Amino acid sequence: MNEPKVDPIQAVTQLLSRLPGIGERTAQRLTFHLLRQDPAYCVALADALKRLSQDVHLCSVCHNFTAQETCSICRDHKRDNGLLCVVATPQDVQAVEASGEFSGRYHVLGALLSPLEGIGPDSLRIPELLRRLAASPAKEIILALRPSVEGESTSFYLQKLLKPHGIPVTVIASGIPMGGELEYADRMTLARAITGRRPA
Amino acid sequence: MNEPKVDPIQAVTQLLSRLPGIGERTAQRLTFHLLRQDPAYCVALADALKRLSQDVHLCSVCHNFTAQETCSICRDHKRDNGLLCVVATPQDVQAVEASGEFSGRYHVLGALLSPLEGIGPDSLRIPELLRRLAASPAKEIILALRPSVEGESTSFYLQKLLKPHGIPVTVIASGIPMGGELEYADRMTLARAITGRRPA
Repeated sequence: MNEPKVDPIQAVTQLLSRLPGIGERTAQRLTFHLLRQDPAYCVALADALKRLSQDVHLCSVCHNFTAQETCSICRDHKRDNGLLCVVATPQDVQAVEASGEFSGRYHVLGALLSPLEGIGPDSLRIPELLRRLAASPAKEIILALRPSVEGESTSFYLQKLLKPHGIPVTVIASGIPMGGELEYADRMTLARAITGRRPA
Repeated sequence: MNEPKVDPIQAVTQLLSRLPGIGERTAQRLTFHLLRQDPAYCVALADALKRLSQDVHLCSVCHNFTAQETCSICRDHKRDNGLLCVVATPQDVQAVEASGEFSGRYHVLGALLSPLEGIGPDSLRIPELLRRLAASPAKEIILALRPSVEGESTSFYLQKLLKPHGIPVTVIASGIPMGGELEYADRMTLARAITGRRPA
């Protein structure tokens, strides 16, 4: 190598410290940890990162992340076509999948309505959702959006929009998390748990 | 690409979760964070990691990490050849450098004596230290080893070994850390701070 190069230790430390939750000290500790590992691990991580940036894009059907034309969930013939779960981000797809409670299809909006941040209905993948429903009508649409101002605005907006389609729309429950103490729950959460009560 | 490949999202998540302090959840969060960044960042990190594993080795003089034949500290002509700071690891070189209080040379032992872990004097770079001292005698050797059983055993071992050479050997001070409360200091640390007291 003839050209002068940045020191690889500094380069890795500096790049790692740009990750969320990783400060300069942690980045340095991680870099020295990497130096103590089998070099094959570093190479595998480098290759995986390169493939992540080059191969991963959005699924043409549901807009989840995928390295292929459509994502593994959209390609899975065993999943229920009649159930459509609407989420904000690909991370939310992972979270719902991890719950093991859903076996239908997903639609990733890409964001939640947020007038303050200039995110209006046009910024969300709503036309794509309507086109999907026109092509293959669902039996139920589950809105799995965050219980926040943005999540609930988006939820209300979609409920109004979907009403004329005559498809039942449900929203995921909001309340006390499993293992949570009523005593430590915030007022809004407890209020929601009470209004959202159901027959025992 | 014809061969079937592991999903890059899973691959990066799995590899990141092998890093210390990064669990599966954090690894997944980092992977999705990477997917939201400019792909150039991912490529830069991948390249830096590859260079880290391929180019970085130990300095032929002091055994600090370097991407060249000798490290930047050994190559620096402005540093004091008469002062030699003995440390356990390359991380310790970084720590002493960060203090801004040392302008001499380093010698990295590679480990500390630990009979329980089977690390005896032969596992440390002590012959290399003696050869360096024979080739260019130092005015002072500073032992900057961790105040622990292993660190102090290593320190005592080196003091005994270096005595016949007639070079003054010093050890870094151990005591209450800056900003620390006496009340919260452990007994050993406070005891060390008292026995190590110096004229005000």
